[in-house]
Amino acid sequence: MGNILVLYQSNTGNTAQMAALISEGAQRVDGIEVRSLSIEEATVEDLKWCHGIALGAPTNFGTVPWKMKKWWDDLIEHDVWPHLDGKFGCSFSSAGSVGGGQELNCMTLNTILMNFGFLVFGLTDYTGPAQSAHYGAVQHGEPRKDGEKEACARLGQRLAEWVATYVDQRPEAHPLQQSYPRLPDDYS
Amino acid sequence: MGNILVLYQSNTGNTAQMAALISEGAQRVDGIEVRSLSIEEATVEDLKWCHGIALGAPTNFGTVPWKMKKWWDDLIEHDVWPHLDGKFGCSFSSAGSVGGGQELNCMTLNTILMNFGFLVFGLTDYTGPAQSAHYGAVQHGEPRKDGEKEACARLGQRLAEWVATYVDQRPEAHPLQQSYPRLPDDYS
Amino acid sequence: MGNILVLYQSNTGNTAQMAALISEGAQRVDGIEVRSLSIEEATVEDLKWCHGIALGAPTNFGTVPWKMKKWWDDLIEHDVWPHLDGKFGCSFSSAGSVGGGQELNCMTLNTILMNFGFLVFGLTDYTGPAQSAHYGAVQHGEPRKDGEKEACARLGQRLAEWVATYVDQRPEAHPLQQSYPRLPDDYS
Amino acid sequence: MGNILVLYQSNTGNTAQMAALISEGAQRVDGIEVRSLSIEEATVEDLKWCHGIALGAPTNFGTVPWKMKKWWDDLIEHDVWPHLDGKFGCSFSSAGSVGGGQELNCMTLNTILMNFGFLVFGLTDYTGPAQSAHYGAVQHGEPRKDGEKEACARLGQRLAEWVATYVDQRPEAHPLQQSYPRLPDDYS
Repeated sequence: MGNILVLYQSNTGNTAQMAALISEGAQRVDGIEVRSLSIEEATVEDLKWCHGIALGAPTNFGTVPWKMKKWWDDLIEHDVWPHLDGKFGCSFSSAGSVGGGQELNCMTLNTILMNFGFLVFGLTDYTGPAQSAHYGAVQHGEPRKDGEKEACARLGQRLAEWVATYVDQRPEAHPLQQSYPRLPDDYS
Repeated sequence: MGNILVLYQSNTGNTAQMAALISEGAQRVDGIEVRSLSIEEATVEDLKWCHGIALGAPTNFGTVPWKMKKWWDDLIEHDVWPHLDGKFGCSFSSAGSVGGGQELNCMTLNTILMNFGFLVFGLTDYTGPAQSAHYGAVQHGEPRKDGEKEACARLGQRLAEWVATYVDQRPEAHPLQQSYPRLPDDYS
Repeated sequence: MGNILVLYQSNTGNTAQMAALISEGAQRVDGIEVRSLSIEEATVEDLKWCHGIALGAPTNFGTVPWKMKKWWDDLIEHDVWPHLDGKFGCSFSSAGSVGGGQELNCMTLNTILMNFGFLVFGLTDYTGPAQSAHYGAVQHGEPRKDGEKEACARLGQRLAEWVATYVDQRPEAHPLQQSYPRLPDDYS
Repeated sequence: MGNILVLYQSNTGNTAQMAALISEGAQRVDGIEVRSLSIEEATVEDLKWCHGIALGAPTNFGTVPWKMKKWWDDLIEHDVWPHLDGKFGCSFSSAGSVGGGQELNCMTLNTILMNFGFLVFGLTDYTGPAQSAHYGAVQHGEPRKDGEKEACARLGQRLAEWVATYVDQRPEAHPLQQSYPRLPDDYS
């Protein structure tokens, strides 16, 4: 019965593609309800509703774009902080280039989530040759390679696994209990 | 039956004082076992044993001191990564001055924990006038004021609450279910 | 003839107070022209004009407030990036509390500046007992203590010194050539 | 007569390859002397000698490896801090995978440099399709593509350009005065 919100801003469609993959991954876990919403669509009710969030935005000039930050800053008008503690969170970002700040952006998105009392995480998994998402799913442009797409999907899946394990109290959902390969020999 | 490890390096005793306060705070939660160990004392078995960790080190030249990093880097010799996923983690640091990098250090300690698959968090609480620990407990020198000491203790308590809530499946331990003031009116 | 821009956003007046102190400090160096402008006042021409910038904003939910980020994101409409390389930059922030993310915010402001090709720096100096500004000037609330005020002023002074030294080619302005105490014995 | 130190740690040879490319790039600028030294080879005298540094290390568990940090922490035994202010600095890192923390590591290396009073920078340039190095040169594994190799070389070149421009007072060395393409149309 865990609820997951994939909340994203997309300028060119790249981050939206990541969001779609993350939503698909979250749905791999039974009994999880997923809402994938842009910041234009999502309301504070969606934030309250969720037990876990995947938060994504393009990297603009090295960090979070103003529209995404405004979504969070505007929450000051609602009586939600600090009443959201204990939700689970992760982040994702597309930049225009390798080395474009997508990891830094993910850590800043994680910082916002920590400020709101979220428990944040990344993936230990490798999802393709030399492909990880240790602090969030990072991309230049749109996801193209299988391993890049799976990094997004796996991040959504992991979020769902943590919500299932810890919120729904289903220890069998713990990633260490799963049989799928988390670090295929030919990747790591 | 949740297990908490307070793992610290201390050069001058300041971070050790923070560790002691964090341990005390963790023990406020019934049914939690706490080990407070320096990096000279702790072994990989302590890391495996714990369900939650508070990781602390002085800030040296803006980030994690080499001895603390060596403790983690040396784990490469043990078959623990990536088999520790899903533990809970937080960080603490003392620097020589305000503006000395203690927040940056905490985020780097959090980064190490995320790399190992930990779910990391800070405090939303205010524990004294203008005293928070949103990304870890930060200090210049030793904790002196009540609010500084309580920031450490509360961080340990919060870690214990998350372990109790999520690992021990005791939803009544959730911080939002507690009656103690998390943001006293005269603080926030 | 070096030009310095102190560019700030202030919500409650605290960051504006820091900006005023930074401007004063910059004016300690002869031959430096200083503009102190809020984001409502500053235009892209001010950014082009300056050889050095001190960039400041409150810390909101752990990072840069949306209005400050919008100021930079909107530069996309102007043909300035990547034609600003080689200017000097530093940052400052006030948060509501100790541990409130002001250091993290400064590093994100520094990240924006680096993205635009700025050379960024902090202070090695101690400006009061246990008071530094190694990665930018950080504050909870308004500057009150002498050392806090001097951290702001010294940051502005240092910015002016770098601009004088490196842009105006006045090696005698280098901070290591100055006689004022950078680390008073009773501070460091 | 500007002096540049490329200071690196390499575990598997990948970061050493980056260091070699950075050294080559620095030598594109006339009148710059370059020393490329591993942390086993470099002494505090090399650090004093240089006007600019490129600092590189593998990404281990998301941040700086202990051996590199020890090199800096051990400087406490020498009377160098805070007498190095005003040098120029940048960073580089290789991780095992995309999303492996190499950007975070670069920012932590930059943080160490800032602590020592360095003025730090990245590249605005694009050096290949979707290839930048905005906060330092980042790599998974060894540099293979032309754009990856050029990101390293350009970073070294930029460091040399800043040292030539600002330390040697040769304004004609400023990157904005150069004729080589910094953002080829088919890259950016």
